[in-house]
Amino acid sequence: MLKRDYEGQNCSIARALEILGERWTLLIIRDAFLGLRRFDELQRSLGVARNILAARLARLVDEGILEEVRYSTHPERFEYHLTQKGRDLGIALAGLRQWGDKYVSAKPPRLLLRKSNKKRVIAAYVQEGDPVLVPDELELVAGPGLAVSGTKRRAKT
Amino acid sequence: MLKRDYEGQNCSIARALEILGERWTLLIIRDAFLGLRRFDELQRSLGVARNILAARLARLVDEGILEEVRYSTHPERFEYHLTQKGRDLGIALAGLRQWGDKYVSAKPPRLLLRKSNKKRVIAAYVQEGDPVLVPDELELVAGPGLAVSGTKRRAKT
Repeated sequence: MLKRDYEGQNCSIARALEILGERWTLLIIRDAFLGLRRFDELQRSLGVARNILAARLARLVDEGILEEVRYSTHPERFEYHLTQKGRDLGIALAGLRQWGDKYVSAKPPRLLLRKSNKKRVIAAYVQEGDPVLVPDELELVAGPGLAVSGTKRRAKT
Repeated sequence: MLKRDYEGQNCSIARALEILGERWTLLIIRDAFLGLRRFDELQRSLGVARNILAARLARLVDEGILEEVRYSTHPERFEYHLTQKGRDLGIALAGLRQWGDKYVSAKPPRLLLRKSNKKRVIAAYVQEGDPVLVPDELELVAGPGLAVSGTKRRAKT
C-alpha cells in the first residue's frame, strides 16, 4: 500500500516526502489551512480531476493528516479537517511560502500575521525551548499579490 | 520550458512546488545541505538513474538554486554548490525533517544543533525581526536513527 518512492533513504525528509510528495497533496493541505473543508470547495480551488482529489484525500485520511467529519446524513457527506499531525505541517508550508514569496511571486499573495499586532510572522531557526509563536496566535490574510497573478522576472546568469 | 504543474494557482507554495515538486529534487537539495557536491556522490547517495539526476541538476542550476563550480579541467568536471536562493530552502527542509522525525522515523536520523552549545534547533514561527539563529550557527549531525532504519508503527484509527 505504502509506495516506497525513496527506498533506502534513511532520512525523515525522504519519509515525509513519501507521504507528501505526490502531486496536489501539499496544495490540498494548504487549502485545509485556508479553511477549505469540503470536496467541492477543494475541487474548485485546485481544478484537479475529481478522481485524483478523492485518491489524495483518502491517502491523507489514511495517514492521519486529515480526518473525516460528517456534516450531512442524507446524503452522507464528510468534511476534511486537519488533525494535529496535519497542523504540524504548517511550519514546512510556511517555509515554502516565504521562499516562494522571496524568489518567485512578484508580490506575496498571502501574509502570515500575528493576530495581536498584525506584524509579519516568519518560519525561522530557534533553539528548542526558546519562545515561539503557536498557530492559534497567527492568521493568514490576503496579501498584495492576491489580486494580481505575477511572478518575478528571473535574471538569467 | 517551465512546466506549469499548478496552472491558475496564485500562491507562493504552488509556485515553489512547480520548481521543487519533481521527484528527487528536494532530496538533491537536502544532499547539498549535507555537503554532497559531486555528481557521483549524489548518485550514490540517492540511487537515482544518472539521466534523471542530470536533468534535475540542470533544472536546479537553471533556477539559480545550485551553481556549477569547476573542480577539474581535464576532464572538465563541476561541483554543485547551493546559492543563497538554495540555502534559503533550509527552513522548509527543516520543517519537513522535524515533521518526519515526529511522525514517521522511529528515531531522528539527523539532529540540527546549535554549534555553540549543542542544543537542538527547530524551525518555528516567530515575529519578523525577533532574534533567530542563522544557518552559520547550526550544524546537522548524525542522530540516533542514522544507524538503524526504522519507521514508527502507525496506530490505525
